[in-house]
Amino acid sequence: MTGTPAPFTADDYTARMRRAARAAGDAGLDGVLIAPGPDLVWLTGYRPPETERLTLLVLRPGEDPALVVPALEAPDAAKAAPMLALRDWTDGTDPYQAAADLLGRAGRSGGAGRFGVSDNTWAMHLLGLQNRLSDTAYVSLTEALPMLRAVKDAAELERLAAAGAAADAAYEEILKVRFAGRRETEVAVDLAGLLRRFGHSQVDFTIVASGPNGANPHHEAGDRVIERGDMVVLDFGGLKHGYGSDTSRTVHVGEPDAEERRVHDIVRAAQEEGFRAVRPGAACQDVDRAARAVITEAGYGAYFIHRTGHGIGVTTHEPPYMVEGEERPLVPGMCFSVEPGIYLPGRFGVRVEDIVTVTEDGGRRLNTTARDMAIVE
Amino acid sequence: MTGTPAPFTADDYTARMRRAARAAGDAGLDGVLIAPGPDLVWLTGYRPPETERLTLLVLRPGEDPALVVPALEAPDAAKAAPMLALRDWTDGTDPYQAAADLLGRAGRSGGAGRFGVSDNTWAMHLLGLQNRLSDTAYVSLTEALPMLRAVKDAAELERLAAAGAAADAAYEEILKVRFAGRRETEVAVDLAGLLRRFGHSQVDFTIVASGPNGANPHHEAGDRVIERGDMVVLDFGGLKHGYGSDTSRTVHVGEPDAEERRVHDIVRAAQEEGFRAVRPGAACQDVDRAARAVITEAGYGAYFIHRTGHGIGVTTHEPPYMVEGEERPLVPGMCFSVEPGIYLPGRFGVRVEDIVTVTEDGGRRLNTTARDMAIVE
Repeated sequence: MTGTPAPFTADDYTARMRRAARAAGDAGLDGVLIAPGPDLVWLTGYRPPETERLTLLVLRPGEDPALVVPALEAPDAAKAAPMLALRDWTDGTDPYQAAADLLGRAGRSGGAGRFGVSDNTWAMHLLGLQNRLSDTAYVSLTEALPMLRAVKDAAELERLAAAGAAADAAYEEILKVRFAGRRETEVAVDLAGLLRRFGHSQVDFTIVASGPNGANPHHEAGDRVIERGDMVVLDFGGLKHGYGSDTSRTVHVGEPDAEERRVHDIVRAAQEEGFRAVRPGAACQDVDRAARAVITEAGYGAYFIHRTGHGIGVTTHEPPYMVEGEERPLVPGMCFSVEPGIYLPGRFGVRVEDIVTVTEDGGRRLNTTARDMAIVE
Repeated sequence: MTGTPAPFTADDYTARMRRAARAAGDAGLDGVLIAPGPDLVWLTGYRPPETERLTLLVLRPGEDPALVVPALEAPDAAKAAPMLALRDWTDGTDPYQAAADLLGRAGRSGGAGRFGVSDNTWAMHLLGLQNRLSDTAYVSLTEALPMLRAVKDAAELERLAAAGAAADAAYEEILKVRFAGRRETEVAVDLAGLLRRFGHSQVDFTIVASGPNGANPHHEAGDRVIERGDMVVLDFGGLKHGYGSDTSRTVHVGEPDAEERRVHDIVRAAQEEGFRAVRPGAACQDVDRAARAVITEAGYGAYFIHRTGHGIGVTTHEPPYMVEGEERPLVPGMCFSVEPGIYLPGRFGVRVEDIVTVTEDGGRRLNTTARDMAIVE
């Protein structure tokens, strides 16, 4: 077990906020508005209760960051994020007026302002702002600044590597438990316990999809009793030191037949080709295309029914997405999954997934357990 | 312990969806759009993973309900909510086009459509709809249909009563544990364990705010070691059988002094007056005014810094809100907290809270433990 990394400091957060405000200016925005959730955690370290009361971080180029906050949460906010100027509002007053005081000045063009908003801002709040400030315009951060959190620095990479290593340790241990005769949910509980044992503070998903359930990529874990002869897709992850893990392996209970071997070999080769496509300057969609080509050429293209990957950081699902149409280039420090699969309805599924980071000259896997089809009992 | 209530059926959900669509029509809307979260759980029983992929329930008066769903989640959606027509979309295609197919027909006026959207719909998705269908307008459900989930039926009241009874049982047990010399977090862990022991599947908050921490209404539980002579605010709740509990009591470690007694008496009297104001036809704000008047007359008005209450149901915070300016009337079956408090900065706080339901001729408490200041060790 590695030690706990040093916590991020107020200076770290201030640097991130400056970078975000500058990126907003470069993108022609008058600022960005950040609701509680992963963007706010990444920018400030502050993780308020997610309620219907408006909390909103306002970042504008060349100005100090300010936080609109419910009065009764102001003490917690001041303690968690001392570098922020607080603009509090009390129950029974209009929170959008509080926000308007920070947004209402004329935009850069001298006219209406245009702001990025964090994707998960509540629609209720966006509508409140649109109504209060009818000459402002809004665009989601995924559209305006999709790569804001995508390139990880050394301290973030250290955390993602630690989370990946913990998930790998959990995988090595789960191979030793009994599968045949137990419910998927029982194996899922084992997996969750292992993730926690290896340092995860939060378990986000523990997919155990046996036999025909494996053909549903988002099956979690159910009452089905795993049988000898089953393929079992394992896909699990969560947060360790605030950063995500996410890995998949497909195992077999007892000896597989020829078709099961063939399908697994194809997925494994597709995952390898996806990984080989990772290098600075390649487009995100190139990773998808490289993996998909292997599966399509083998005749299973219709059974690979999702994109090849997604970014990971303070969440387990974020930009960049490895999907057809995503033409933005890979940049050193980006971290994302490479996870092709084949799903044969009513029969079985196979998925193999590693988290990969872009290096100066290619890619590096943050999951390093064997990718062949392990045989379990 | 009471037994598990019978699960809601597809017919129950269909009736709720019809009611919502009809209410939308009565409010002059062309329909309502529901993202994953409590509204979707209440309307359909479906609880998809909350990811960046668009899932959206579309309810229109006189039409069958339809669900926009990512293709790879369609099998789970079909199983969880068989009464819904699915409109699936695949990675790499435009999910807002899928939604537009359901929304794009002319509105009731023959012109643009106007839709309610669930409060917690992601801003990214609302912006996607606004961009794709520029002649549609949107309003949050809290603004358009704030009371949609507010009046509980008999099966819901049964669940809320069971959750309240479980929270009460947890309170009776926590009075027996040691407070002095232990950290707030240790007592909070005890409280969480008790809520689970009495049937909660989810613990949402376990506030243990001792001494000066009690003066911060949203303090959760920290490293402070509780001392003899401390006031301690306990405020805890979560979900049992899918419905919420939320109760507060303020206890004292050893004998209180005269001022502590006086402040607690005032809060208890305020809570009593708030409860007495509960009856059909009274305005929500009347409950706030009744409780607040007691505290103001006693000279502590400046130290009661939040509204008096909030609704509860499939969440622990929802309309109706007992707050100045909320003029809508109370209706039999509504359930909400009555929770006045006094917060003396740097010194201590007191809060007393019950969940109350509106009956035909008054109110009924769903929390029935003694409201006097219990003395703990």
